[in-house]
Amino acid sequence: MGKKADEFAEYRARMNERILAADNRVVKRIYSVDSLTYSEGPALSKKTKELLGLVASLVLRCDDCVKYHLGEARDAGNSRDEIMEAMSVGLVVGGTIVIPHLRRAVEYLDDLDEPGASEPVAG
Amino acid sequence: MGKKADEFAEYRARMNERILAADNRVVKRIYSVDSLTYSEGPALSKKTKELLGLVASLVLRCDDCVKYHLGEARDAGNSRDEIMEAMSVGLVVGGTIVIPHLRRAVEYLDDLDEPGASEPVAG
Amino acid sequence: MGKKADEFAEYRARMNERILAADNRVVKRIYSVDSLTYSEGPALSKKTKELLGLVASLVLRCDDCVKYHLGEARDAGNSRDEIMEAMSVGLVVGGTIVIPHLRRAVEYLDDLDEPGASEPVAG
Amino acid sequence: MGKKADEFAEYRARMNERILAADNRVVKRIYSVDSLTYSEGPALSKKTKELLGLVASLVLRCDDCVKYHLGEARDAGNSRDEIMEAMSVGLVVGGTIVIPHLRRAVEYLDDLDEPGASEPVAG
Amino acid sequence: MGKKADEFAEYRARMNERILAADNRVVKRIYSVDSLTYSEGPALSKKTKELLGLVASLVLRCDDCVKYHLGEARDAGNSRDEIMEAMSVGLVVGGTIVIPHLRRAVEYLDDLDEPGASEPVAG
Amino acid sequence: MGKKADEFAEYRARMNERILAADNRVVKRIYSVDSLTYSEGPALSKKTKELLGLVASLVLRCDDCVKYHLGEARDAGNSRDEIMEAMSVGLVVGGTIVIPHLRRAVEYLDDLDEPGASEPVAG
Repeated sequence: MGKKADEFAEYRARMNERILAADNRVVKRIYSVDSLTYSEGPALSKKTKELLGLVASLVLRCDDCVKYHLGEARDAGNSRDEIMEAMSVGLVVGGTIVIPHLRRAVEYLDDLDEPGASEPVAG
Repeated sequence: MGKKADEFAEYRARMNERILAADNRVVKRIYSVDSLTYSEGPALSKKTKELLGLVASLVLRCDDCVKYHLGEARDAGNSRDEIMEAMSVGLVVGGTIVIPHLRRAVEYLDDLDEPGASEPVAG
Repeated sequence: MGKKADEFAEYRARMNERILAADNRVVKRIYSVDSLTYSEGPALSKKTKELLGLVASLVLRCDDCVKYHLGEARDAGNSRDEIMEAMSVGLVVGGTIVIPHLRRAVEYLDDLDEPGASEPVAG
Repeated sequence: MGKKADEFAEYRARMNERILAADNRVVKRIYSVDSLTYSEGPALSKKTKELLGLVASLVLRCDDCVKYHLGEARDAGNSRDEIMEAMSVGLVVGGTIVIPHLRRAVEYLDDLDEPGASEPVAG
Repeated sequence: MGKKADEFAEYRARMNERILAADNRVVKRIYSVDSLTYSEGPALSKKTKELLGLVASLVLRCDDCVKYHLGEARDAGNSRDEIMEAMSVGLVVGGTIVIPHLRRAVEYLDDLDEPGASEPVAG
Repeated sequence: MGKKADEFAEYRARMNERILAADNRVVKRIYSVDSLTYSEGPALSKKTKELLGLVASLVLRCDDCVKYHLGEARDAGNSRDEIMEAMSVGLVVGGTIVIPHLRRAVEYLDDLDEPGASEPVAG
């Protein structure tokens, strides 16, 4: 896991803590159902559900949501080809407006898988 | 397959023909890549890709797209529980704004699976 | 309450029952948190929260959500002027794309308040 | 001009009147700036601006807005090919989620140009 | 008021000036109606209207709009609990896709209210 | 062309290369149809099509897409006034939620046209 993923995870954790500190019942219940949503089964595997969350995030063009689900989708056993193919569905459904988000998704995926792969080549 | 699904399929076919009759190269290529998107493999099954298309359509709140993918997802072998679980991911990601679309999705799914199931009971 | 509102309430109730019959845990929890969201307090009144739900629904351009919150906002004691002013905020934030939804909102509000007010005049 | 376009124009006019009857200053000013937006010049022609309004409406997937701008774009002198090519830009940018709206757009355009062209053939 | 809020206010002011320098009549009128929208009354208080603008901005997931309305909502007398409760409505309506925007909202609110509150703790 | 535009072009090129390296057929075909979409004719000029792409990008609030089309629209011969007027259509259709994107658009346009024009004045 590369530097981008580390920083993102730290920021997420820190700010989620701040949000939950407000002790708002509705907010806490949404956080709780969010965890349940991507758990294993009963009908679909976590592996598939993470791809569903990834594509939903991509067509809604939420970069941070895409990053989160890229990490989870990898951890749940999806290959890079499976992830790219899932994202290709999002690209077709959502149109070329999705392309800038796809660029950031692949940059983040590179950082997860092979830190440095999409960095600019030093001159 | 019930009456709603029949009418929808007829309208889709008729208007797609009208659209393609305009002979616009860009439009024709989008229609062609759309078919390719949900074909079997190489990395993901058609069964999974149809669930991805379904959830993308649901969070983008396109009723006709949802209907189309419900039919395709059923044909590709997804059980009703798998479809409901996929749609539950869309509901959480997209929020309660998705609920009216979920109502129409379940009404259409009922029409596909057991025509009459969600009709009002006669007084 | 007019005919449009009755039919809408009946359809909502019938299809929500079909959805909950699927017994999906995630879906049931979203329905449950939805009820909690618009309850009185602790910090904001139900009267204000219904206006928040209305404006959120309007800018996201969900006609059924708008209808639902129009009914609830009226029941919670909002005057017609308060509702129009809340919707004017949604119109400015969301742009002219909101106008067709505003037309349907006012038609529904007319049906709630004075059935027939926005019907075409017989020739 | 066909029956669909007539009914749509009547509903628009009737409900706009109801909306403006509320005498909300913000709403009235948005209606007024909306008219100004598509007027001739200073830099762009009304013909081009109507195509801009059409494509914006199509990617935001507002059927009534699309219908309105189809009528205006035709009246401002755009050929059917120019309109289809403008909509093809919207389709690519907005993705396949736009297709159901394109079907309704072409159906409406047929009704404007050659009433009956996209009606089902009687059996 | 913290550093983030200062920088944001400076950038907003500078670029709004550049935009208005183009002397486009439509743009100027939208800026003018925007100010009117959140003024006191006639039916709703500025305090409530700012919460409406905040929730509309949150569900449309516009970070800069959220920041702006957080500042205005605070200035108009909304407590932190009122703001969090308003945002909880946006979270439920808009779904978990709103969470990253909620994180940035709370970070900005912390900067407004207690600069440093959501900064990482030095090692 | 200023520094912002250079960096953006470099990032786009580098990440598009990474995306295409995945050799996904669907993704490659979307990239290919994207190029075709904005080519000259048959019915509309590239000059007009770039304005259509710009307004579609603006109402969908995709900053990178807006930047790209600003560059292309300039290269295709659109004057600054034509671009501002096209963007004013997007502002009216999309509402005040578009304003932050308009700020970034004008900042980028300044960088394209007169590097430094919208930079803060040194104290």
